Amino acid sequence: MTVAVLTGVPGVGATTVAEEANEALEEHDADYEVVSFGTVMLEVARDEGLAEERDEMRKLPSEEQRRVQEQAGERIAERAEDTNIMVDTHCTIKTPEGYLPGLPEWVLRGLQPDVVVLVEADPDEILFRRLDDETRARDFESTKELATHQDMNRNAAMSYATLTGATVKIIKNPDGGVEDAADELVDALA
Amino acid sequence: MTVAVLTGVPGVGATTVAEEANEALEEHDADYEVVSFGTVMLEVARDEGLAEERDEMRKLPSEEQRRVQEQAGERIAERAEDTNIMVDTHCTIKTPEGYLPGLPEWVLRGLQPDVVVLVEADPDEILFRRLDDETRARDFESTKELATHQDMNRNAAMSYATLTGATVKIIKNPDGGVEDAADELVDALA
Amino acid sequence: MTVAVLTGVPGVGATTVAEEANEALEEHDADYEVVSFGTVMLEVARDEGLAEERDEMRKLPSEEQRRVQEQAGERIAERAEDTNIMVDTHCTIKTPEGYLPGLPEWVLRGLQPDVVVLVEADPDEILFRRLDDETRARDFESTKELATHQDMNRNAAMSYATLTGATVKIIKNPDGGVEDAADELVDALA
Repeated sequence: MTVAVLTGVPGVGATTVAEEANEALEEHDADYEVVSFGTVMLEVARDEGLAEERDEMRKLPSEEQRRVQEQAGERIAERAEDTNIMVDTHCTIKTPEGYLPGLPEWVLRGLQPDVVVLVEADPDEILFRRLDDETRARDFESTKELATHQDMNRNAAMSYATLTGATVKIIKNPDGGVEDAADELVDALA
Repeated sequence: MTVAVLTGVPGVGATTVAEEANEALEEHDADYEVVSFGTVMLEVARDEGLAEERDEMRKLPSEEQRRVQEQAGERIAERAEDTNIMVDTHCTIKTPEGYLPGLPEWVLRGLQPDVVVLVEADPDEILFRRLDDETRARDFESTKELATHQDMNRNAAMSYATLTGATVKIIKNPDGGVEDAADELVDALA
Repeated sequence: MTVAVLTGVPGVGATTVAEEANEALEEHDADYEVVSFGTVMLEVARDEGLAEERDEMRKLPSEEQRRVQEQAGERIAERAEDTNIMVDTHCTIKTPEGYLPGLPEWVLRGLQPDVVVLVEADPDEILFRRLDDETRARDFESTKELATHQDMNRNAAMSYATLTGATVKIIKNPDGGVEDAADELVDALA
């Protein structure tokens, strides 16, 4: 079965695009089980008695975090033996220490994705979507920073592809274009 | 001996630049044997009785394709024990599933290139060259898509370099500039 | 302890930013020992009787150079058991053969950096800084080439991050902005 990794900077609407696409895929019995990488990591951490909540998980020593990440990748790959899986995660995460790769080598080796999807939009549009979404407190990123973030995501995705042979699919999600974006995702995944 | 990987998006004129450069290199007895990666893959597939034609090869299970790719890389590296080799291939291939790395890790490990050459041109010029070349039916790529494709090629090339220690040489091939481009390639390869 | 890799194209002022940052870090007893990767390589080469000077080192067979690089990475990692280390090096080195990765895989495996810092500036500003610095003879790079060089450095850094889990921190060092740049580096390293 197919393992697709779905990524996009916060506010770009990656999850919405995936939901739309999945509805269409369902009609052809080709739908994907969507799993959040962070949720699977938490499952692993709980099973091993390492952490109960996300916050605790972030406080684990980095070696432990790596092991949990690695096992989460393997666990998802196991599930993909029976069903198509779409992993909802981040290509890179912007932290005060810099851009952190969401899929470092030790995750990729277990996960073996077939395709890494980058949902992108114009930085201006992302900025306005974030301003509109008052439910979430996000660190402010300028349009320039958003452009850099999306650029770094492309860089990272191509590294992931080199290590796994996955394809990197860029899907634009402009304002009012979620249907087209979903169609394109269907074409890439079907 | 040197293993050079020659890449460029379709229509950029990479093969022409390589031929010009090779003529100049021949004068110094430093010429390269040019091999197409796809052709060597087909040789491997034929030797193993897996496929007779390219189309059949594309239909092989992905695990088989990987093994054929890997062996093609090793076969080229063996030939490079006696002669300089220039591998004509693609840095990434644009498919409906996204950008596919032309040199995934399992190829790089065997091939061990010394230099990855990216022949680039302005997207406008590439577009016009493609329109002029009526002999080949190509999927239409807009100038924006061509710019993205060349960007993804740079990303991929630098990943290949990190895994192998190869250098990444960018050579511009503008309209009317093939001689200069060839000279630059000679400087990089001599 | 933390291993930070400090990079930037020649003339961008990476070392100056690092020195400023280190002064502030010292006040919190969180300072870094700054080591030049090239100097550690030379130490290794001398200890093994392979070379006495940098020029000799460059003439070693490439296999020997790799081994020296690898050991330099391991040696720095050993020192980092007791102290924070900042490795002053290049993300990529521009050579006639193309962009050479400063931290190929065999260095990264030993070094295991926690963060790769890219000090960047506008190509115009870098160009003027180079013109002002008459003490060093540098190959002329146009602003376009400088932009490409910085772009390739980002590509390389994200590959390094994928293999090691390091973060990639981009720090802008505009004219008159060295204090702010240093503050940002302190935030990333503290």
